[in-house]
Amino acid sequence: MERKSRQKAAVELHPRWRVSAGKNIAVGPGKVDLLELIAETGSISKAESKMGMSYMRAWSLVKTMNESFKSPVLIAERGGRDRGGATLTDTGKAVLKLYRQIEKESLKVIQPKWRSLQLLLRD
Amino acid sequence: MERKSRQKAAVELHPRWRVSAGKNIAVGPGKVDLLELIAETGSISKAESKMGMSYMRAWSLVKTMNESFKSPVLIAERGGRDRGGATLTDTGKAVLKLYRQIEKESLKVIQPKWRSLQLLLRD
Repeated sequence: MERKSRQKAAVELHPRWRVSAGKNIAVGPGKVDLLELIAETGSISKAESKMGMSYMRAWSLVKTMNESFKSPVLIAERGGRDRGGATLTDTGKAVLKLYRQIEKESLKVIQPKWRSLQLLLRD
Repeated sequence: MERKSRQKAAVELHPRWRVSAGKNIAVGPGKVDLLELIAETGSISKAESKMGMSYMRAWSLVKTMNESFKSPVLIAERGGRDRGGATLTDTGKAVLKLYRQIEKESLKVIQPKWRSLQLLLRD
Protein backbone atom coordinates (compact mmCIF):
# COMPACT_ATOMS: atom_id res chain seq x y z
CA MET A 1 0.00 0.00 0.00
CA GLU A 2 2.90 2.36 0.76
CA ARG A 3 4.78 3.77 -2.22
CA LYS A 4 7.87 5.30 -0.68
CA SER A 5 9.54 5.92 -4.02
CA ARG A 6 6.71 8.10 -5.25
CA GLN A 7 7.84 11.59 -6.19
CA LYS A 8 4.93 13.81 -5.18
CA ALA A 9 3.00 13.85 -1.94
CA ALA A 10 0.19 11.59 -3.10
CA VAL A 11 -3.24 11.43 -1.59
CA GLU A 12 -3.90 7.83 -0.64
CA LEU A 13 -6.52 5.78 1.13
CA HIS A 14 -5.27 2.94 3.34
CA PRO A 15 -7.45 0.26 4.90
CA ARG A 16 -6.02 -0.31 8.35
CA TRP A 17 -8.30 -3.04 9.63
CA ARG A 18 -7.81 -3.87 13.28
CA VAL A 19 -8.96 -7.03 15.01
CA SER A 20 -9.17 -6.32 18.71
CA ALA A 21 -9.52 -9.05 21.30
CA GLY A 22 -10.15 -7.34 24.60
CA LYS A 23 -7.19 -5.09 25.27
CA ASN A 24 -5.01 -6.85 22.70
CA ILE A 25 -4.78 -6.19 19.00
CA ALA A 26 -4.94 -9.70 17.55
CA VAL A 27 -3.98 -8.47 14.11
CA GLY A 28 -3.62 -5.13 12.36
CA PRO A 29 -1.56 -3.53 9.57
CA GLY A 30 1.81 -3.87 11.33
CA LYS A 31 1.34 -7.46 12.51
CA VAL A 32 0.14 -8.64 9.12
CA ASP A 33 3.10 -6.98 7.34
CA LEU A 34 5.41 -8.78 9.75
CA LEU A 35 3.62 -12.08 9.12
CA GLU A 36 3.94 -11.58 5.37
CA LEU A 37 7.64 -10.78 5.57
CA ILE A 38 8.26 -13.82 7.76
CA ALA A 39 6.44 -15.94 5.16
CA GLU A 40 8.62 -14.43 2.40
CA THR A 41 11.97 -14.60 4.19
CA GLY A 42 11.44 -17.69 6.38
CA SER A 43 13.00 -15.74 9.21
CA ILE A 44 11.85 -13.44 11.99
CA SER A 45 15.22 -11.67 12.12
CA LYS A 46 15.20 -10.93 8.37
CA ALA A 47 11.59 -9.76 8.58
CA GLU A 48 12.19 -7.42 11.55
CA SER A 49 15.29 -5.90 9.98
CA LYS A 50 13.33 -5.18 6.77
CA MET A 51 10.70 -3.46 8.90
CA GLY A 52 13.27 -1.53 10.95
CA MET A 53 11.93 -3.24 14.06
CA SER A 54 13.84 -4.72 17.00
CA TYR A 55 14.00 -8.50 17.43
CA MET A 56 12.24 -8.24 20.79
CA ARG A 57 9.51 -6.06 19.32
CA ALA A 58 8.90 -8.56 16.52
CA TRP A 59 8.78 -11.39 19.08
CA SER A 60 6.29 -9.43 21.15
CA LEU A 61 3.98 -9.00 18.14
CA VAL A 62 4.28 -12.69 17.26
CA LYS A 63 3.55 -13.62 20.89
CA THR A 64 0.35 -11.52 20.92
CA MET A 65 -0.77 -13.12 17.65
CA ASN A 66 -0.02 -16.61 18.94
CA GLU A 67 -2.02 -15.91 22.09
CA SER A 68 -4.96 -14.40 20.20
CA PHE A 69 -5.60 -17.30 17.87
CA LYS A 70 -6.71 -20.83 18.76
CA SER A 71 -3.42 -22.17 17.45
CA PRO A 72 -0.09 -20.38 16.85
CA VAL A 73 0.44 -18.37 13.66
CA LEU A 74 4.01 -19.53 13.31
CA ILE A 75 6.56 -21.99 14.57
CA ALA A 76 9.86 -20.33 15.35
CA GLU A 77 13.29 -21.46 16.35
CA ARG A 78 14.77 -19.06 18.85
CA GLY A 79 18.53 -18.79 19.21
CA GLY A 80 21.07 -21.17 17.70
CA ARG A 81 22.61 -20.94 14.25
CA ASP A 82 19.21 -20.42 12.63
CA ARG A 83 18.31 -17.55 14.97
CA GLY A 84 14.90 -16.32 13.94
CA GLY A 85 14.13 -19.13 11.50
CA ALA A 86 10.36 -19.36 11.29
CA THR A 87 7.58 -20.99 9.31
CA LEU A 88 3.95 -19.93 9.14
CA THR A 89 1.45 -22.52 10.33
CA ASP A 90 -1.79 -23.22 8.46
CA THR A 91 -3.44 -20.76 10.87
CA GLY A 92 -0.81 -18.12 10.09
CA LYS A 93 -1.25 -18.61 6.36
CA ALA A 94 -5.04 -18.38 6.69
CA VAL A 95 -4.85 -15.20 8.82
CA LEU A 96 -2.52 -13.55 6.28
CA LYS A 97 -4.69 -14.56 3.33
CA LEU A 98 -8.00 -13.52 4.95
CA TYR A 99 -6.60 -10.18 6.12
CA ARG A 100 -5.30 -9.36 2.62
CA GLN A 101 -8.65 -10.41 1.12
CA ILE A 102 -10.44 -8.14 3.59
CA GLU A 103 -8.22 -5.26 2.48
CA LYS A 104 -8.73 -5.99 -1.21
CA GLU A 105 -12.50 -6.49 -1.08
CA SER A 106 -13.04 -3.44 1.08
CA LEU A 107 -10.83 -1.23 -1.12
CA LYS A 108 -12.76 -2.32 -4.19
CA VAL A 109 -16.23 -1.64 -2.83
CA ILE A 110 -15.49 1.84 -1.51
CA GLN A 111 -13.94 3.24 -4.72
CA PRO A 112 -16.97 5.36 -5.70
CA LYS A 113 -17.07 7.00 -2.24
CA TRP A 114 -13.30 7.42 -2.28
CA ARG A 115 -13.50 9.24 -5.61
CA SER A 116 -16.06 11.62 -4.09
CA LEU A 117 -13.79 12.21 -1.10
CA GLN A 118 -10.78 12.79 -3.37
CA LEU A 119 -12.64 15.61 -5.12
CA LEU A 120 -12.75 17.45 -1.79
CA LEU A 121 -9.05 16.99 -1.08
CA ARG A 122 -6.33 19.40 -2.09
CA ASP A 123 -4.10 18.19 -4.94
CA MET B 1 -17.65 1.09 16.92
CA GLU B 2 -16.29 0.92 20.49
CA ARG B 3 -18.53 -0.64 23.11
CA LYS B 4 -16.89 0.32 26.38
CA SER B 5 -19.77 -0.96 28.48
CA ARG B 6 -19.46 -4.49 27.12
CA GLN B 7 -18.88 -7.07 29.85
CA LYS B 8 -16.57 -9.60 28.21
CA ALA B 9 -13.44 -9.03 26.17
CA ALA B 10 -15.12 -9.15 22.79
CA VAL B 11 -13.41 -9.90 19.53
CA GLU B 12 -14.12 -7.01 17.20
CA LEU B 13 -13.16 -5.87 13.73
CA HIS B 14 -12.66 -2.12 13.25
CA PRO B 15 -12.21 -0.40 9.92
CA ARG B 16 -9.65 2.31 10.54
CA TRP B 17 -9.49 3.96 7.14
CA ARG B 18 -6.72 6.50 6.81
CA VAL B 19 -6.50 9.18 4.13
CA SER B 20 -2.89 10.25 3.87
CA ALA B 21 -1.83 13.38 2.02
CA GLY B 22 1.95 13.29 1.87
CA LYS B 23 3.17 13.25 5.48
CA ASN B 24 -0.16 14.39 6.86
CA ILE B 25 -3.14 12.29 7.77
CA ALA B 26 -6.00 14.22 6.18
CA VAL B 27 -8.59 12.13 7.95
CA GLY B 28 -8.65 8.94 10.01
CA PRO B 29 -10.63 7.37 12.86
CA GLY B 30 -9.69 9.99 15.47
CA LYS B 31 -10.22 13.03 13.29
CA VAL B 32 -13.59 11.82 12.05
CA ASP B 33 -14.78 11.08 15.60
CA LEU B 34 -13.79 14.62 16.55
CA LEU B 35 -15.64 16.02 13.53
CA GLU B 36 -18.74 14.05 14.45
CA LEU B 37 -18.67 15.22 18.07
CA ILE B 38 -18.24 18.82 16.96
CA ALA B 39 -21.25 18.40 14.67
CA GLU B 40 -23.26 16.97 17.58
CA THR B 41 -22.21 19.44 20.25
CA GLY B 42 -21.63 22.55 18.12
CA SER B 43 -18.45 23.11 20.08
CA ILE B 44 -14.79 22.13 19.83
CA SER B 45 -14.30 22.37 23.59
CA LYS B 46 -17.27 20.07 24.33
CA ALA B 47 -16.07 17.62 21.66
CA GLU B 48 -12.50 17.50 22.94
CA SER B 49 -13.56 17.02 26.55
CA LYS B 50 -15.79 14.10 25.50
CA MET B 51 -12.79 12.57 23.73
CA GLY B 52 -10.44 13.24 26.67
CA MET B 53 -8.31 15.36 24.38
CA SER B 54 -6.67 18.71 25.06
CA TYR B 55 -8.03 21.86 23.42
CA MET B 56 -4.73 22.43 21.62
CA ARG B 57 -4.67 18.83 20.38
CA ALA B 58 -8.20 19.17 19.00
CA TRP B 59 -7.23 22.44 17.30
CA SER B 60 -4.20 20.79 15.78
CA LEU B 61 -6.34 18.01 14.28
CA VAL B 62 -8.84 20.55 12.94
CA LYS B 63 -5.98 22.60 11.46
CA THR B 64 -4.58 19.57 9.62
CA MET B 65 -8.02 18.75 8.24
CA ASN B 66 -8.61 22.34 7.16
CA GLU B 67 -5.25 22.36 5.37
CA SER B 68 -5.83 19.00 3.68
CA PHE B 69 -9.13 19.85 2.04
CA LYS B 70 -9.81 22.42 -0.66
CA SER B 71 -12.02 24.34 1.75
CA PRO B 72 -12.15 24.22 5.58
CA VAL B 73 -14.11 21.46 7.33
CA LEU B 74 -15.40 23.81 9.97
CA ILE B 75 -15.76 27.41 10.95
CA ALA B 76 -14.76 28.01 14.54
CA GLU B 77 -14.87 30.90 16.95
CA ARG B 78 -11.78 30.92 19.09
CA GLY B 79 -11.82 32.58 22.49
CA GLY B 80 -14.56 34.88 23.80
CA ARG B 81 -17.72 33.80 25.57
CA ASP B 82 -18.42 31.11 22.96
CA ARG B 83 -14.93 29.60 23.27
CA GLY B 84 -14.83 26.60 20.98
CA GLY B 85 -18.13 27.25 19.28
CA ALA B 86 -17.94 25.62 15.87
CA THR B 87 -20.06 24.68 12.88
CA LEU B 88 -19.25 22.14 10.19
CA THR B 89 -19.06 23.53 6.67
CA ASP B 90 -20.59 21.71 3.70
CA THR B 91 -17.14 20.20 3.11
CA GLY B 92 -16.95 19.04 6.73
CA LYS B 93 -20.42 17.49 6.53
CA ALA B 94 -19.51 15.73 3.26
CA VAL B 95 -16.22 14.39 4.67
CA LEU B 96 -17.99 13.02 7.75
CA LYS B 97 -20.76 11.44 5.69
CA LEU B 98 -18.43 9.90 3.09
CA TYR B 99 -16.06 8.53 5.74
CA ARG B 100 -18.94 6.87 7.65
CA GLN B 101 -20.30 5.45 4.39
CA ILE B 102 -16.84 4.04 3.57
CA GLU B 103 -16.79 2.36 6.99
CA LYS B 104 -20.31 0.98 6.60
CA GLU B 105 -19.92 -0.32 3.04
CA SER B 106 -16.54 -1.89 3.73
CA LEU B 107 -17.76 -3.56 6.93
CA LYS B 108 -20.70 -5.03 5.07
CA VAL B 109 -18.75 -6.51 2.18
CA ILE B 110 -16.10 -8.20 4.31
CA GLN B 111 -18.49 -10.04 6.67
CA PRO B 112 -17.97 -13.51 5.10
CA LYS B 113 -14.18 -13.18 5.41
CA TRP B 114 -14.52 -11.79 8.91
CA ARG B 115 -16.59 -14.81 9.93
CA SER B 116 -13.82 -17.09 8.62
CA LEU B 117 -11.24 -15.10 10.57
CA GLN B 118 -13.36 -15.21 13.74
CA LEU B 119 -13.37 -19.01 13.58
CA LEU B 120 -9.59 -18.93 14.00
CA LEU B 121 -9.65 -16.54 16.96
CA ARG B 122 -9.79 -17.61 20.58
CA ASP B 123 -13.12 -17.01 22.32
